[in-house]
Amino acid sequence: MTLQTRQIEKSPNAYGYPLLLKNILRTPLIYSPDQEIVYRDKKRMTYRDLAARISQLGSGLLAMGVKPGDVIGIMDWDSDRYLASYFAVPGIGAVMHTINVRLSPEQVLWTMNHAEDAVVFVHEDFIPIVEAIKDQAKTVKKWILIKETDAPVKSSVAFDCEFEEILAKGAADYEFPDFDENTMATLFYTTGTTGDPKGVYFSHRQLMLHTLAMSVATGAFAGNGRIHSDDVYMPITPMFHVHAWGVPYVATMLGIKQVYPGRYEPEMLLKLLISEKVTFSHCVPTILHMLVSSPVAKKVDLRGWKVIIGGSALPRGLAKAAMELGIDIYTGYGMSETCPLLTLSALSPDMLSLDTEAQLDFRTKTGRAVPLVDIRIVDPMMKDTPKDNQTAGEIVVRAPWLTQGYYKNPDKGKELWEGGYLHTGDVAVIDDKGWIRITDRIKDVIKTGGEWISSLELESLISQTPGVSEVAVVGVPHEKWGERPVAMVVALPETSGEALPEAIKNHLAKFVDDGTISKWAIPEQINVVAAIPKTSVGKIDKKVIRAELAKK
Amino acid sequence: MTLQTRQIEKSPNAYGYPLLLKNILRTPLIYSPDQEIVYRDKKRMTYRDLAARISQLGSGLLAMGVKPGDVIGIMDWDSDRYLASYFAVPGIGAVMHTINVRLSPEQVLWTMNHAEDAVVFVHEDFIPIVEAIKDQAKTVKKWILIKETDAPVKSSVAFDCEFEEILAKGAADYEFPDFDENTMATLFYTTGTTGDPKGVYFSHRQLMLHTLAMSVATGAFAGNGRIHSDDVYMPITPMFHVHAWGVPYVATMLGIKQVYPGRYEPEMLLKLLISEKVTFSHCVPTILHMLVSSPVAKKVDLRGWKVIIGGSALPRGLAKAAMELGIDIYTGYGMSETCPLLTLSALSPDMLSLDTEAQLDFRTKTGRAVPLVDIRIVDPMMKDTPKDNQTAGEIVVRAPWLTQGYYKNPDKGKELWEGGYLHTGDVAVIDDKGWIRITDRIKDVIKTGGEWISSLELESLISQTPGVSEVAVVGVPHEKWGERPVAMVVALPETSGEALPEAIKNHLAKFVDDGTISKWAIPEQINVVAAIPKTSVGKIDKKVIRAELAKK
Repeated sequence: MTLQTRQIEKSPNAYGYPLLLKNILRTPLIYSPDQEIVYRDKKRMTYRDLAARISQLGSGLLAMGVKPGDVIGIMDWDSDRYLASYFAVPGIGAVMHTINVRLSPEQVLWTMNHAEDAVVFVHEDFIPIVEAIKDQAKTVKKWILIKETDAPVKSSVAFDCEFEEILAKGAADYEFPDFDENTMATLFYTTGTTGDPKGVYFSHRQLMLHTLAMSVATGAFAGNGRIHSDDVYMPITPMFHVHAWGVPYVATMLGIKQVYPGRYEPEMLLKLLISEKVTFSHCVPTILHMLVSSPVAKKVDLRGWKVIIGGSALPRGLAKAAMELGIDIYTGYGMSETCPLLTLSALSPDMLSLDTEAQLDFRTKTGRAVPLVDIRIVDPMMKDTPKDNQTAGEIVVRAPWLTQGYYKNPDKGKELWEGGYLHTGDVAVIDDKGWIRITDRIKDVIKTGGEWISSLELESLISQTPGVSEVAVVGVPHEKWGERPVAMVVALPETSGEALPEAIKNHLAKFVDDGTISKWAIPEQINVVAAIPKTSVGKIDKKVIRAELAKK
Repeated sequence: MTLQTRQIEKSPNAYGYPLLLKNILRTPLIYSPDQEIVYRDKKRMTYRDLAARISQLGSGLLAMGVKPGDVIGIMDWDSDRYLASYFAVPGIGAVMHTINVRLSPEQVLWTMNHAEDAVVFVHEDFIPIVEAIKDQAKTVKKWILIKETDAPVKSSVAFDCEFEEILAKGAADYEFPDFDENTMATLFYTTGTTGDPKGVYFSHRQLMLHTLAMSVATGAFAGNGRIHSDDVYMPITPMFHVHAWGVPYVATMLGIKQVYPGRYEPEMLLKLLISEKVTFSHCVPTILHMLVSSPVAKKVDLRGWKVIIGGSALPRGLAKAAMELGIDIYTGYGMSETCPLLTLSALSPDMLSLDTEAQLDFRTKTGRAVPLVDIRIVDPMMKDTPKDNQTAGEIVVRAPWLTQGYYKNPDKGKELWEGGYLHTGDVAVIDDKGWIRITDRIKDVIKTGGEWISSLELESLISQTPGVSEVAVVGVPHEKWGERPVAMVVALPETSGEALPEAIKNHLAKFVDDGTISKWAIPEQINVVAAIPKTSVGKIDKKVIRAELAKK
């Protein structure tokens, strides 16, 4: 649609202030220049120091020949160095490739070659990975060593210099240039269960708008989990992963004290949590589970610690255990492709008087859309599902900070953006107050007779049938209904497998009666098997199950 | 400077989410759809109602033939109608011209003709103005009546219809279109002491970034005066003036309860303040003075009321009186050309333990830059002045929300933006913590021998000399020093005018000794006169004084 609106002429003034990441640093230098950035128990610096080091790193990179548009890979633990790179690398117009150091050397190599890294920062802990791949990393011209210990480094890698030498060559008063806000700032790779890693990338503009909206969402709305400039922040989501959810940019803009824990070791995390008086973190459920079940956790006071859980659903049991320790826990939802923030499950002030169980109902939900996010739950025709907290649909989304596709992979990007909305692949319900709850992944949903049935929900109900040890439900193609659910179950020892299918059907019928599931959800076919196919990491392998069933 | 950075391709996805004002309405409809918008003691509605009325107004305007790019003038008191127009008019791609109803009919006409208003909303109270000018308002095709009373309207104006009839023709579920975020959204006129009014205009993008940054500045930093979604907001700065400082957009994004007081009558303001439990307002010093000195103010509890003072400097006496009533008072600085927000004088948490006098020192300052604002205090060569809280320079600024010039007046715009920064015309000092204090207007500053001397400060010191009744100081051209200060004084009755110049010089010498002023600040020429030239509204007329001195 083209409207004959009045355009503001593109004068130098209009665009004289592009949304560049460097502008985040203005406020901490005014409001809290002496506030600290802490790295483990090893280093402390002020925002003034940080800003000087960012300028040194940016100008040092230029001095060593890095050009705007070059891609710089980073293999480091969460640190002040990484934080400085968050600003310095995009600040000179280069692209920061945050390398996932948990990938196999082959995958790391694949991403380096695909991203065309020209320079790579390598923490000494990751030298073995680089030694294994350096000869095939064709685009890398310079390896830079990040050294923390005094031990001499023996390696076959021809390091160009050490990280601190780059800073030494730079100028602390260097001022970053202006350029187009649509310049690519960051790049990283997301790995699915199949296929090559996919590159996801964000511009300065996108990161700036994400930072502003996240600050409003966590700071200006009333309720629990509020983040203000007097908080103390420690990320427990790796900085290579979606820029640690973008929170370091928020924390920096607000001039918050920041604590970087390096490698995640429970003892160090808890030690920093206490000694630095951390009030705000974010992590995946596994990490929080590890922390709250550690013996040390029982001895320390974690009350008031605000923790946003993301990465996967927040289990109710974990949320309850955390709340009992006084932790202010809630959910954040997003994905690599969405920069990531889309929703938060922080409560409104009136909900804080609800009892724990009622609060858990909401804190474990996916949440409500943050400012600017246009989120919809739609059926396959892109029609909105009713806001009845029951009808499932796919979450599709628009926001000013979504990846525009996959890097150098235009076909995949088209799929992602079908119909003008980014398709998350998550299936959810929404209530009349905008609260969203994810029920499944779309690839595991069974579409039958126009209805969507959650395989996860069916598995959960079937697993409660007496005698069932393990269960997997997949959809198989059906001429009339599109798909039909098929269950594969393993009987408990001493249980007759023969009677199990009928018992399961009777068990499920009760949930049809009370409205939990539709009658179309009961599988006609329930196969009792000796074992369910699993992947190498022990997850149920639905792809193999589907393939086996297709053969029959 | 052109950098070879990597540009993100301008795909439909990248620009599929322009920063348009309509997107502000997403969050209140999720977080507080039943929260109220109140108009005097006459009307209450929810955000759900407001959103429906905005859709009705937008689609109703289209139905009556309004086209994107048309300019719609508004002559109304602060109301829910005005708030709906803030979204509906720019929402269809039209331009909202907020007419200053305090101007003379001739000036109103001038702005209507200059803005080329096609449609004008007219509250019945302003019919006399329209009657006086309608025949010369060449571009206006339709006058729309806003009627509040039941009394029949007798007027020579041929009204096309009533405001509510437009809504009746519109659809409550109308969805506003997407278009370029650089589309002009608002236009209004600023009047100086001389010359024609100047049009200042803002795009959707600019207003969106202003809204986000103001929300972060007032919501996510810790300290006093914080604005969160559980506040109750009542503007006491007219909605025609810089969109009531942009706060209605912030309040709407956060889903805050909003109270619109219509015409400003002290009794109604205080009544609403109490009955609606208002917690946050903004106004000019005169209005606050009127309110706190009203007899009713003594009888009511104003504790915790957050008030941002702008428009002119916050006098210490008023600030103290307000603090004694428990009002959380501080300064906001900006101007029509800057959308307006540039700085706030809210205190950091550590400053809240200061005693009242020390707090007043800061609360009455101009403040510190809010996020994204690049503010500098510079000498005439655009070099930064030292951050010594003493050396004066002009405030120049960059931010993503500054007017790009004056509407249809490119020459004036060039002047405004000299050197890539917007020149505020305000002279200020800055300390090493970024606190700014305005000392003068640049046109009243005396530039002598490379130093800037504040005429206001000199006048203040001279006025304290015994025997002085009135004083004005201006700069006159000087071959060697550029300019020299010349004082014009009126002696008190019974004071010998002859001895006054020497007494003044001796008095000023004391302030040279203690470092308050430089020795160059003492005028050689002090003219004792019978009267000082004044403008029609009683302000000292420095233009006339300069002209008179030039003749000599």
